Amino acid sequence: METIDRKSGSALWHQIGEILAADIAAGTFAPGAKLPTEPELMERFGVSRFTVRQALGHLEQRGLVRAEQGRGTFVHRGALDYTLSKKTRFSKNLIEQGFEPGGELLIHEVVAASERVAARLKLASGAPVIHRRGVMTADGVPVELGDSYYPADRFPDFDKARLQYETISAALASYGVHDYVRLSTEIEARMPSAEEARLLRQPKSTPVLVILKVDVDSDGVPIAYAETLWSAERVTFNVDLG
Amino acid sequence: METIDRKSGSALWHQIGEILAADIAAGTFAPGAKLPTEPELMERFGVSRFTVRQALGHLEQRGLVRAEQGRGTFVHRGALDYTLSKKTRFSKNLIEQGFEPGGELLIHEVVAASERVAARLKLASGAPVIHRRGVMTADGVPVELGDSYYPADRFPDFDKARLQYETISAALASYGVHDYVRLSTEIEARMPSAEEARLLRQPKSTPVLVILKVDVDSDGVPIAYAETLWSAERVTFNVDLG
Repeated sequence: METIDRKSGSALWHQIGEILAADIAAGTFAPGAKLPTEPELMERFGVSRFTVRQALGHLEQRGLVRAEQGRGTFVHRGALDYTLSKKTRFSKNLIEQGFEPGGELLIHEVVAASERVAARLKLASGAPVIHRRGVMTADGVPVELGDSYYPADRFPDFDKARLQYETISAALASYGVHDYVRLSTEIEARMPSAEEARLLRQPKSTPVLVILKVDVDSDGVPIAYAETLWSAERVTFNVDLG
Repeated sequence: METIDRKSGSALWHQIGEILAADIAAGTFAPGAKLPTEPELMERFGVSRFTVRQALGHLEQRGLVRAEQGRGTFVHRGALDYTLSKKTRFSKNLIEQGFEPGGELLIHEVVAASERVAARLKLASGAPVIHRRGVMTADGVPVELGDSYYPADRFPDFDKARLQYETISAALASYGVHDYVRLSTEIEARMPSAEEARLLRQPKSTPVLVILKVDVDSDGVPIAYAETLWSAERVTFNVDLG
């Protein structure tokens, strides 16, 4: 393990930064991995917390690591290449690239459809819709914040059905929706709200890509509308055009 | 024409703002149209430049107009719905939505391919490529800033050929490339550089959508690579998925 040289004339924080940068380049700390904590680095190099923070700040400025509030410092990893096609599946996309997919449901509620949601689902404004908000992760890092809406009258007790089946597709099948297709996919970009940036664990100054999609059953009736937000620094969409 | 009421108790700038907002709502000033200049508005309402600016600032805050440095104030228009498919054509897309397409070539040069460009065109890094930079407009408003790259050895005197034929397709056909298909389309988002924001006539604080695309001939050999930037507040991509 490399150590610092107090007589070299080069600032300690700079030497520590270079040692950690070399560790990252060598793969000792892999993309996405958590760096040792500040106390651990203080002990390893025999320096103050201030010096450790200077070193980590230097690495962050160089884009090599990212400090995440309350979680630690992580090796920055390249963007996810996410293929958008009619058959797009989140988990499959990630697994193919060696990421471990994960997710957390944040909200499950029945609400009155806003005009925007009602229009996409071809419901009357104010009709009851199931709203589900979740964060999807790649190796534990949030990449997608999604809000999905389903007509509540058509899918009563959807939360129970969703728990009972492993996938959304299987849950929908239990209501007789055995097949559905993508009606439309729209892509936009904008700045995130403070809340969206917090949930995606990204800076407020980084834009988000927004995907708006409508799925319809075999009769062409909308069964789901979703708006998903992606941290622009973490994804490149590979679009399979028809 | 409505006028202001100096005895109404409502601030003059507010009255003027309301009159102009009503004109916009009525279509007197259509989406994309330029509002009268500040001197014209000063004369029409018999008020100071300060009052006119307050009124315009109010309209801008409401998202009804956008002031463009050195050009005047324009009625904000809805986003362009741009369909991305294998058969995407800029002009057709715009005309179908009632926009008048336009464009301006800013750069035509032969340069050494950067690593990024060479990789996409499957050339050696540093190989000569034709670089063309242009701005495409909808009703005179820039929507797309594009950098295109072509292998220079394969398309000698491309600038002359391009002038001789109305379309890129026809110019390519004159080199024996009668058919080409989209190999890949990638979509990203990021903040623009100062130069990019200037060319797109948009704020530096608005993100841009970036489309990276590679076209190949019938043998699968890359013939063109382009990076196009779109002002995120002016476009929604409608993706036709395969």
